[in-house]
Amino acid sequence: MTERTFHPPQRTLMGPGPSDVSPRVLEAMCRPTIGHLDPVFVAMMDELKGMLQYAFQTNNQMTMPVSAPGSAGMESCFANLVEAGDQVVVAQNGVFGGRMKENVERCGGTAIMVEDEWGTAIDLNKVEDALKANPDAKVLAFVHAETSTGAQSDAKGLAELARKYNCLSIADTVTSLGGTPLLVDEWGLDAVYSGTQKCLSCTPGLSPVTFSERALEHIKGRETKVQSWFLDLNLVMGYWGEGAKRAYHHTAPINALYALHESLLILKEEGLENSWARHKHYHMALRAGLEALGLEFVVAEADRLPQLNAVKIPEGIADAVVRGKLLNDYSLEIGAGLGPMAGKVWRIGLMGHAANAKNVRLCLSALDNVLSGLGAGHSRGAAIEAAEKVLSAG
Amino acid sequence: MTERTFHPPQRTLMGPGPSDVSPRVLEAMCRPTIGHLDPVFVAMMDELKGMLQYAFQTNNQMTMPVSAPGSAGMESCFANLVEAGDQVVVAQNGVFGGRMKENVERCGGTAIMVEDEWGTAIDLNKVEDALKANPDAKVLAFVHAETSTGAQSDAKGLAELARKYNCLSIADTVTSLGGTPLLVDEWGLDAVYSGTQKCLSCTPGLSPVTFSERALEHIKGRETKVQSWFLDLNLVMGYWGEGAKRAYHHTAPINALYALHESLLILKEEGLENSWARHKHYHMALRAGLEALGLEFVVAEADRLPQLNAVKIPEGIADAVVRGKLLNDYSLEIGAGLGPMAGKVWRIGLMGHAANAKNVRLCLSALDNVLSGLGAGHSRGAAIEAAEKVLSAG
Repeated sequence: MTERTFHPPQRTLMGPGPSDVSPRVLEAMCRPTIGHLDPVFVAMMDELKGMLQYAFQTNNQMTMPVSAPGSAGMESCFANLVEAGDQVVVAQNGVFGGRMKENVERCGGTAIMVEDEWGTAIDLNKVEDALKANPDAKVLAFVHAETSTGAQSDAKGLAELARKYNCLSIADTVTSLGGTPLLVDEWGLDAVYSGTQKCLSCTPGLSPVTFSERALEHIKGRETKVQSWFLDLNLVMGYWGEGAKRAYHHTAPINALYALHESLLILKEEGLENSWARHKHYHMALRAGLEALGLEFVVAEADRLPQLNAVKIPEGIADAVVRGKLLNDYSLEIGAGLGPMAGKVWRIGLMGHAANAKNVRLCLSALDNVLSGLGAGHSRGAAIEAAEKVLSAG
Repeated sequence: MTERTFHPPQRTLMGPGPSDVSPRVLEAMCRPTIGHLDPVFVAMMDELKGMLQYAFQTNNQMTMPVSAPGSAGMESCFANLVEAGDQVVVAQNGVFGGRMKENVERCGGTAIMVEDEWGTAIDLNKVEDALKANPDAKVLAFVHAETSTGAQSDAKGLAELARKYNCLSIADTVTSLGGTPLLVDEWGLDAVYSGTQKCLSCTPGLSPVTFSERALEHIKGRETKVQSWFLDLNLVMGYWGEGAKRAYHHTAPINALYALHESLLILKEEGLENSWARHKHYHMALRAGLEALGLEFVVAEADRLPQLNAVKIPEGIADAVVRGKLLNDYSLEIGAGLGPMAGKVWRIGLMGHAANAKNVRLCLSALDNVLSGLGAGHSRGAAIEAAEKVLSAG
């Protein structure tokens, strides 16, 4: 046989996720597996749930990690809240808004699309017009932090609009959780999903979600069963909900939950505000360097996510060549563009554990070398110098 | 803050799963995370897929791990194969057949139930009668190895019946894969799902699945979209299928896939036939000991799964007391009964890495001590003696 034990190279992950995983998280992940109904495990779950409530800034009892990646978290929101015939207003300003449309339709609902240009924030006026024009709409869905473009939208304002027009809100916070302010209760969001592999510095594979009481009431009052057994919150609540009997629903991904527990512990030790500030700080350093390289940001300054820096690929520079050199010569991964942005932008992540000075320096020096080698016209060394100014000021 | 790093106790897992995980698998799991589109990762996926084909004994191109636990694997089979209005014959002889019914109904189909007593194998005659009586049925679904009872059914015979009556077959092999013969191609199964946390000695969280060409043709010819975006094979094929472009669908659970890769490697090194024989051997030893303890098997000898030993709890012995003592005094987990069998049976697993002499000895001596302490009338030491005879003969 030719198969062998797999030894991955050690990369620096500065794409749109997965991002660098903390060694503490990896260490947690390989501790001995125990049973999913073991009292010791159940106590760990309670602690994990409490820390997830902290990360989301919520008291929602229904706060837990879905045992599958972010797209399943998205689906758990739509499948539970949307019934056949329902109208859902979906604000789209990137790839993930489009995926929301797919979700609505696969639940038998009608998606009323409100489209904004990719790379811009969602326009609240347009959303309000759509809500006014569609008084039967039951849900407003939007992406807080568009991973495909690096644009951040006003989740608080959108949640307010949803309430004003008697809609539940569904928010994609896959890239924002832990990296940029997200206040689920204060903003009044109803169904929120995220991922572990971005600003939580954890391995990919789980999707933290939280549901408001209002959302749960809606789910309990559904006329039809949730179309997914696996994601049906009425069943999952028996395992993760308030006063849950920890009834067997499915076998929890034990070791992945050890990892998430540790990553949430790291977040709590640092403190949410400090984590947000750290992301911002290294973003400012990276930004100074990228601009010194002559790279232009896709998103206007006010709407930029610090943790996901989308920049335009300079004229005449081949996307794949640059990313290939970064990966092969520097073991550094940055992200390609998605959809209409493929070949046109790079997405440089500074997420969770990866938001640090070492990564800023590596990324800028590597890009400086590679772009210079391809004849891009910028002053060698200027990028690092610009970044160092910000780093030393921090 | 009161939260701390979680250090699980070291258990011996002899329940219905998760079972003991090989240290090699845990070690693989905590290697550095890399990107899901990294060429090195993609090459690992190819290797993993090949080993999964070996484990399933299939050449099916559509063979891959669903990025979620077994119940999502089950759902991926039903959601892709069943459309609203379809009739599905479901053979039920335990908990998981009941879950299949739920899946059929949530896809808008009608489940035609063929019920057998829990703890018995599926009666092929009754299934044939149902197929004859329902000529419009499109799918026959059944559980190969009922994890709730420890009964094994004739998957080969059931697959033949499905073909004879022009149905596709869906088989639950969560507990059989790797532990007991399963020949997907030779038997002609169409859609098969399994889990990682049983006889593959891997951590829980993924669900290996395989689909025949006939199943794929059916999926491509669907009149409606698959109701789950996350599980839609038409989309997943772009990432895992033949000649796949590794198009981004969702972020794969990287480290969990490292673990599965290593567990499949261990299986291939041992060889499937040897693994089956090992499960059988330790089952015979455990069985001799359990019988010497006066414990009666739930399932008739011919239909017993070697890897899951369901025994009746003796009169007057309190289920929770025994399991509690085993867990607290021996750090040994055995499984409780599910559904109507709760409180009436124990399920003792010998799965994957856990199918070894040490576990047989631990389990029998612990049960001997605990049951004696509760005044059960059996001869002390006889269980181990009976097991040792089998072990030394092996």
